[in-house]
Amino acid sequence: MTTALCPGSFDPPTNGHVDVITRAAGIFDRVVVAVVGNPSKQPLFTAAERVSLLEVLFADVDTVEVAAFDGLLVTFARSKGADVIIKGLRGASDFDYELQMAQMNSTLEGLETMFLPTSPAMGYLSSSLVREVGRLGGNVESLVPKVVAKALEERLR
Amino acid sequence: MTTALCPGSFDPPTNGHVDVITRAAGIFDRVVVAVVGNPSKQPLFTAAERVSLLEVLFADVDTVEVAAFDGLLVTFARSKGADVIIKGLRGASDFDYELQMAQMNSTLEGLETMFLPTSPAMGYLSSSLVREVGRLGGNVESLVPKVVAKALEERLR
Amino acid sequence: MTTALCPGSFDPPTNGHVDVITRAAGIFDRVVVAVVGNPSKQPLFTAAERVSLLEVLFADVDTVEVAAFDGLLVTFARSKGADVIIKGLRGASDFDYELQMAQMNSTLEGLETMFLPTSPAMGYLSSSLVREVGRLGGNVESLVPKVVAKALEERLR
Amino acid sequence: MTTALCPGSFDPPTNGHVDVITRAAGIFDRVVVAVVGNPSKQPLFTAAERVSLLEVLFADVDTVEVAAFDGLLVTFARSKGADVIIKGLRGASDFDYELQMAQMNSTLEGLETMFLPTSPAMGYLSSSLVREVGRLGGNVESLVPKVVAKALEERLR
Amino acid sequence: MTTALCPGSFDPPTNGHVDVITRAAGIFDRVVVAVVGNPSKQPLFTAAERVSLLEVLFADVDTVEVAAFDGLLVTFARSKGADVIIKGLRGASDFDYELQMAQMNSTLEGLETMFLPTSPAMGYLSSSLVREVGRLGGNVESLVPKVVAKALEERLR
Amino acid sequence: MTTALCPGSFDPPTNGHVDVITRAAGIFDRVVVAVVGNPSKQPLFTAAERVSLLEVLFADVDTVEVAAFDGLLVTFARSKGADVIIKGLRGASDFDYELQMAQMNSTLEGLETMFLPTSPAMGYLSSSLVREVGRLGGNVESLVPKVVAKALEERLR
Repeated sequence: MTTALCPGSFDPPTNGHVDVITRAAGIFDRVVVAVVGNPSKQPLFTAAERVSLLEVLFADVDTVEVAAFDGLLVTFARSKGADVIIKGLRGASDFDYELQMAQMNSTLEGLETMFLPTSPAMGYLSSSLVREVGRLGGNVESLVPKVVAKALEERLR
Repeated sequence: MTTALCPGSFDPPTNGHVDVITRAAGIFDRVVVAVVGNPSKQPLFTAAERVSLLEVLFADVDTVEVAAFDGLLVTFARSKGADVIIKGLRGASDFDYELQMAQMNSTLEGLETMFLPTSPAMGYLSSSLVREVGRLGGNVESLVPKVVAKALEERLR
Repeated sequence: MTTALCPGSFDPPTNGHVDVITRAAGIFDRVVVAVVGNPSKQPLFTAAERVSLLEVLFADVDTVEVAAFDGLLVTFARSKGADVIIKGLRGASDFDYELQMAQMNSTLEGLETMFLPTSPAMGYLSSSLVREVGRLGGNVESLVPKVVAKALEERLR
Repeated sequence: MTTALCPGSFDPPTNGHVDVITRAAGIFDRVVVAVVGNPSKQPLFTAAERVSLLEVLFADVDTVEVAAFDGLLVTFARSKGADVIIKGLRGASDFDYELQMAQMNSTLEGLETMFLPTSPAMGYLSSSLVREVGRLGGNVESLVPKVVAKALEERLR
Repeated sequence: MTTALCPGSFDPPTNGHVDVITRAAGIFDRVVVAVVGNPSKQPLFTAAERVSLLEVLFADVDTVEVAAFDGLLVTFARSKGADVIIKGLRGASDFDYELQMAQMNSTLEGLETMFLPTSPAMGYLSSSLVREVGRLGGNVESLVPKVVAKALEERLR
Repeated sequence: MTTALCPGSFDPPTNGHVDVITRAAGIFDRVVVAVVGNPSKQPLFTAAERVSLLEVLFADVDTVEVAAFDGLLVTFARSKGADVIIKGLRGASDFDYELQMAQMNSTLEGLETMFLPTSPAMGYLSSSLVREVGRLGGNVESLVPKVVAKALEERLR
C-alpha cells in the first residue's frame, strides 16, 4: 500500500488544492492531507478551521485523511507512514523553490517528493490571491468550493 | 477607441515605468495609469504624491491620464472603460506571477491582460531597488526622472 | 485605428491560435494574421493551404485578414500598416526566446511586440504536438477546429 | 496495485535514468520502463539494444519491466495498465515542455503525469551530452553504468 | 592581481557558501567575503558573529579575508579594490533577480558581477532553510559546517 | 596569472560576443577565445574564417588570443592552461542548459565555469538571429561589428 502526503497551509483551501488532492487520491492507495499548523505568516483561519474545511471537502473519499502538524514535515510524514510527498506545481517559477525543499527533505530523511502539475484551468489559483480578492470585495465563488466561499465571507465581513 | 490601463504601485515611478507607459501610449488611443492606493507594504510616497509625480511626467501627453484606486483592479478598470490591462515584463521570473494575475482577472471579469517587454536597458529597474539605492546614499539620477530623484532625495534626507 | 499583426507558421492552426487571434480581435481595431511562407523546416501544409484554413476559421470576423509573407517580419508588418506585433505566450520558457525576437524587431524597425497569455486550457497546445499526435494515429478533435482536423486527417492518411 | 510508466528514448540509459527508475520502484508497486522505439532523430542504439541494456541494469529488481513501443504513449500506457506516467525533472526549463506533454496526455486520455526531481548530483546528465562526450573521446565512466560505457565504446569505436 | 568580492548575509554560513567561496579562492588571487551588516530582516546572528564564523571557516586560506559593511555594495567593493563581484547561482529562478542586481551595480559603478553555479549537491541549501530546520528541531549537521551547527544550536536553544 | 577561456561557435561573432570577451579581458589576466571547429550544424563560416574575424576584432587587445579546437572543451582548456571557462548568459532559459554543461565539465575535469551576464542592450543578440536577418535581407549593422557585417554580406550574396 502506498501512502502519499499532501502538505500545505490551505489558508483557505482552493479549487486548485481540491484538484491536486483528488487526483492524488486517484493514483495512491491512501492520501494524508498535512495542514501546516503555524505557518510563518499569521493565518486567516486557525489550523483547526482549515482541517475542518478540508474534512468537509473530502468527507466522501475514504482514502483521504486530514491532519494538522507542527515541526518538521519529514518527521510528520514518517509518523504517518508516508512513502512520498506530493506537491502541486503551477509553473516553472514554482519549480526551483519546490526542488530545493524536495532535495532538503531527501537529504534529511531520505523522503521522496513528487510533483503533480495543476490542471490548466487551476494554474492561476493560490490561497493568497483568494484572500486578496476576498478582502477587496471580489466574488470568489469560481475560485474555491462553496463551503470555503461561505467561511471566507464570514471571516472577512 | 481602445483604452489601456497600466496598473502599479509606482513607489516611486522609475525610468522603466516611463518607458512602458510611453510605449503603450504609442500603441493605444488612451492610457490610464492606475496607481494602487494602499499596497500591502507601507509605501514611501502617498497615493496623492505618486499620482502627482506621474502627472508631471506625462503632462505633455494628452492621451495619458493618472488616477489612484482602491479595491479590485478589474472593478476600477471597468469604471474607466478599459479594454485591456498592460503590464511591463522584465524577465521570465516575472512571467509566472503576472500570468496568474492575468488569468485571475480574466476569470473574474473577462478582462484581458497584455504584456509589453521592458526595453533592454531598463530591465534591471524596479521601485524597490531604487528605494534601496536611495536609502543607502547612492545616486539614482540614471534610474529615475529628475523630478522623482529630487522627491526621493527630499523624502529620504 | 490600431492594427495588430499576429505572425506564425500555423502548420496547422490550433485551438490555441484561434483563441489568441479571437482575443486580439476583441482588443484591436484590425488584426492581420501573418503566415510565415517558408519556415525553416518543411511545413506539412503549403502557405496557401494554411492561409485558406485560417480564412475559413475567421470568415465571420470582418476585422481579421490573413496573408502569407516571406522575408523579414518587420518589413511585412510595415507594409500592412501594423502598429504592434502580437504573440501568444504559453509559459516562462517561451518568454526568453520571444523577448529576444521582440527586442531584435524593436532595434531593427522600432516595431513593438506585445504578448497575450494563452488561455489556461490551451497552454499545452502547439502545432508540432498536434502533428505528432496526428501522425501517431491519435484523435486531434479536442486540439484543433473541425476543418483543421479533417485537413490533417486527409494529409496524413 | 499502482503501476507507473517511465517513458524515454534511453539512447543510451544514463546514471540519471537509473536513479529515477530506481526511486520510482521504491514508491510504486510496479514500474514499466517504456522505450520509445523510433524517436524523431536516428538513435545511436536500436530499440532492441536499448531494451536489452535496461533489462541488464534492472535484472535484480522484480517490479521493473522494460518494453519498447511505437505510436502514442497514452495508448501504450493503457495497454500496460499504467496508472500514472513518471518523468524526471532536472530544472525549471525542463518543466514547461514536460507540462505541455502532461496536459496533452491528460486531455487525450485522462492519464496523469507525475514528476520526480533528479538527484542533485545527476542534474547535469542527459543522453545527448553522454553521446557527445563519447564521440569526442571523453571518459563516460562517471556518467553511465559500466555496461552502458562498454556498449558506447564499442558503438563509437 | 585580481580581487573578487563575495557578498551575502551569511545568516548563518552554509556548506553552499563555503563551497562557492572555496572555489572562488581557487580561481582568483584574493577573495573578500563581504558580510551585509544590517540586512532588511532582523538577522539571527549579529554582523560580528557572522564575520567571526566565516573567519574560523577560512582561517587556513591566506587569500580569503572577511569584512562586514553597511551602505552600497559597490562603494564597499571599490574601497576593497575589488575587480568583480561573485555570486553563487542555484537555479534559473535565482538568475533573474541576480541579473537585475548585476545590471544595477554595473550601471551605478561599472562594477562587473560574475556567477558561479553551486555544486549540484549544494543546490538546495539556503540560510533561511537552515534556520527553519534548526528552529523545528531538525538536524543541520549535513547542511552547515560543525562550528556553525554548534552556534546555531546554542542560539536556538 | 589567471587565464579565462571563452568558448563558442561565433558563426559569426556578434556585438554580444565582443561585449562579453572585452569585459572578461577587463577582469582576467589572459583570455583565450576558443572557437568550436566543427559544430553539430554546418557553419556559415569555416573555423579559419571565424578565427580570423575574431583576431581582427581583438587585434588591439594584447591579452586576448584566438584559437580553434576540436574534441572535448575541457581537454583544450587544459592544454591552454585555462583556470576557468567563461560563458555569457542572456536570460534564465539559457541558464539551465549552461548549468548542465558547467556541471558536466566540472565532473569530467574539475574545470570551473563562470557566467558573465550580457549587457542589457545585447541581451537579444545571437548568431542564429543574425544569420536569419542577413538571409532575409535585413540590415545587420546594429547587430555585429562592421568587419563581420561586410563578411556576412559577401557570404550571403
